Amino acid sequence: AIDSDALWHDIMETAQFGATEKGGLCRLALSAEDRQVRNWFTQTAEALGATVTSDDMGNQFARFEGTEPGLAPIAIGSHLDTQPTGGKYDGIIGVLGGIAVLRTLKESGRRLRHPVEIVNWTNEEGARFAPAMLSSGVFAKIFTPDFAKSRVDAQGKRFDTALASIEAAGDEPCGEHPLAAYLELHIEQGPVLEAEHCTIGVVTGVQGMRWYEVTVTGRDSHAGTTPMTMRADALQAASRLMASVQEIALNRPPHAVGTVGMVTVKPNSRNTIPGEVIFSVDLRDPNDDVVIAMENSFRDRAGALSREYGVSIGIREIWDSPAVHFDQRLIDAVSFAARAQHLPSREITSGAGHDAAYLARIVPTTMIFVPCAGGISHNESESATREDIAAGANVLLQTLFIADRQ
Amino acid sequence: AIDSDALWHDIMETAQFGATEKGGLCRLALSAEDRQVRNWFTQTAEALGATVTSDDMGNQFARFEGTEPGLAPIAIGSHLDTQPTGGKYDGIIGVLGGIAVLRTLKESGRRLRHPVEIVNWTNEEGARFAPAMLSSGVFAKIFTPDFAKSRVDAQGKRFDTALASIEAAGDEPCGEHPLAAYLELHIEQGPVLEAEHCTIGVVTGVQGMRWYEVTVTGRDSHAGTTPMTMRADALQAASRLMASVQEIALNRPPHAVGTVGMVTVKPNSRNTIPGEVIFSVDLRDPNDDVVIAMENSFRDRAGALSREYGVSIGIREIWDSPAVHFDQRLIDAVSFAARAQHLPSREITSGAGHDAAYLARIVPTTMIFVPCAGGISHNESESATREDIAAGANVLLQTLFIADRQ
Ligand SMILES: NC(=O)NCCC(=O)O
Ligand SMILES: NC(=O)NCCC(=O)O
Repeated sequence: AIDSDALWHDIMETAQFGATEKGGLCRLALSAEDRQVRNWFTQTAEALGATVTSDDMGNQFARFEGTEPGLAPIAIGSHLDTQPTGGKYDGIIGVLGGIAVLRTLKESGRRLRHPVEIVNWTNEEGARFAPAMLSSGVFAKIFTPDFAKSRVDAQGKRFDTALASIEAAGDEPCGEHPLAAYLELHIEQGPVLEAEHCTIGVVTGVQGMRWYEVTVTGRDSHAGTTPMTMRADALQAASRLMASVQEIALNRPPHAVGTVGMVTVKPNSRNTIPGEVIFSVDLRDPNDDVVIAMENSFRDRAGALSREYGVSIGIREIWDSPAVHFDQRLIDAVSFAARAQHLPSREITSGAGHDAAYLARIVPTTMIFVPCAGGISHNESESATREDIAAGANVLLQTLFIADRQ
Repeated sequence: AIDSDALWHDIMETAQFGATEKGGLCRLALSAEDRQVRNWFTQTAEALGATVTSDDMGNQFARFEGTEPGLAPIAIGSHLDTQPTGGKYDGIIGVLGGIAVLRTLKESGRRLRHPVEIVNWTNEEGARFAPAMLSSGVFAKIFTPDFAKSRVDAQGKRFDTALASIEAAGDEPCGEHPLAAYLELHIEQGPVLEAEHCTIGVVTGVQGMRWYEVTVTGRDSHAGTTPMTMRADALQAASRLMASVQEIALNRPPHAVGTVGMVTVKPNSRNTIPGEVIFSVDLRDPNDDVVIAMENSFRDRAGALSREYGVSIGIREIWDSPAVHFDQRLIDAVSFAARAQHLPSREITSGAGHDAAYLARIVPTTMIFVPCAGGISHNESESATREDIAAGANVLLQTLFIADRQ
């Protein structure tokens, strides 16, 4: 079994890298804080007998050899980057849960047939560089390396420049190395498991999601002298279009969600009518057709507002991650492991994107969820219990054993 | 009469300090570009025989002596700072029109009874440091020096720090020196004069205006996993409240205007439901009671949205500039000067705030407007003709002569 004290200790120790005053984390991908936690990962995994390498997207692999030569590794992973006001568990328990598995293997002396690799994927959150799951996406050939490396952050800094500045790039071209299976432990980030008193979520897949960048262009003019009827106010049009995102999602219950997370107003001066507003839209549903229907409603609303306000509205799709169904044999293995450990469990679809969603396109993949308090995530107060995380890590360990025999 | 070629030349010469690609200006108060134009002001005024001093708010005074000892100076002024995407005329023609008056006095040899002072007021726009008209406000004892010097810009830099960093502060305490009258030439920044083919606006006063800073606080959470019905989305509440600003102004025709110019979203990440949104509101009407009624409607709407969305909404008034009526004798003088020069004119209330609105509280004050194309201002494409500006400067000159005799 997993050493739950050591796992909890690792979570709290790494939470110093990017700690915020409110007890959360701000550890954006490829920041100085990310570099600190990457170094911790390398040192910790090496001390457990693993060999650590990085690929040219900065993905880190801690490899623990198996007994049977020629078998591809089974990977266990997630991410160590966070949102600007993120929590201590999102992504982190997936990587540190993997470290806990290594510790068990080392201390028990038990050897598996396959090599095991613990993976830290770069820029999963998409908070610094959009889209999310960027480097697992390159690994799975969803994105080209050129596309990924040329993404820019809000300050205009390129992904590859940021990668070089923390010396996180390795030599291996991303996606070169084969895997036999991929497992990811994660907090649910939603309210279902807690509400139903389940310790384990047997994740059957990930819902479909699309991101858009919307640009509304009107005309800058003076807030005091321009009559209401002579304005081309980009923000007045944008505020109605942003409001429509909520209505569009509410119209398609029970699963659809729609969010505007990011807004830039130009010139952003109190007494100038905004000439340009740029905002993000995130639309999701387990059924890809619903996502498309929401997009169509949004485009219709934009067309109507563009005419009404005399502004132009451009809508650019910047990410499309269709719904994913995980590998049935691995789903069954998680379900079996939970039952064997007498842990209450249920099947669940992930509302969040995960590196597993991309890995599933190229290798048998599944995920294990544990509850988080109030379903709150992407928030500094995100919280999960030591017991639930340990239970999830034990299910991860046993699923690994089953996968190793398959 | 004014040397209109020299005046136009000065406008184009100073437009190099902070020139933007689109032909406008970005010359924020106390920036490096502001320092350049301040140096130009000093050198140019000194070459015309004036003595240039600054007070401790960085207001610049170029003094040209009169014949009668003991008389307080008549001041002519405006501002050389601009919006982030501003034009070449807003404020600038008021200061450079004053320089043109000095040039006429020097070249004609004509001496006035009063000294004449050309004033460049610091931070009129309110774009870098809110509120607007900050340093004329200190001069008129509307704001205390401590309040003004502790204003911070969007980067958190204090006014006094910025002032020191471009070495723009002089020794004289702001507001110490008496004035006999204050005159300001400005573009209308609205559509009325152009539409009515008037060259001169005889400005009778300035409408009432208030600024607010609104903070909507909800709860950060995950955009993909948080059901629509479990959100406390600060931006969804804010988008409806921002939209209400337009409705509230449209409900009080024909003069009321309402604008949201500035928005900050936190944490500003595509896949995090915003936990906090801060935005500015600008409400104006020539009748102060209408401004108050708009504020009340806005507060009511905020209360309702706060309950509906489960967010808290704080509304902080950060500026209140009541409606102002200018000095009737000076208004009559402008009207007379326009007629004497056969320039079509009409009375007009200013929709924009001006340093004159604060000077009017302490000294006989008036303003002269000239048209600008399409009424467009606070825009890089702001434009005014050489002829109209020269006509305005000639009316300014003649109004000065009349005031000097009063
Ligand atoms: N797990 C997680 O929060 N991933 C970020 C991608 C997403 O927005 O769902
Ligand atoms: N003239 C001018 O644009 N002043 C700025 C203050 C205002 O917002 O009216």
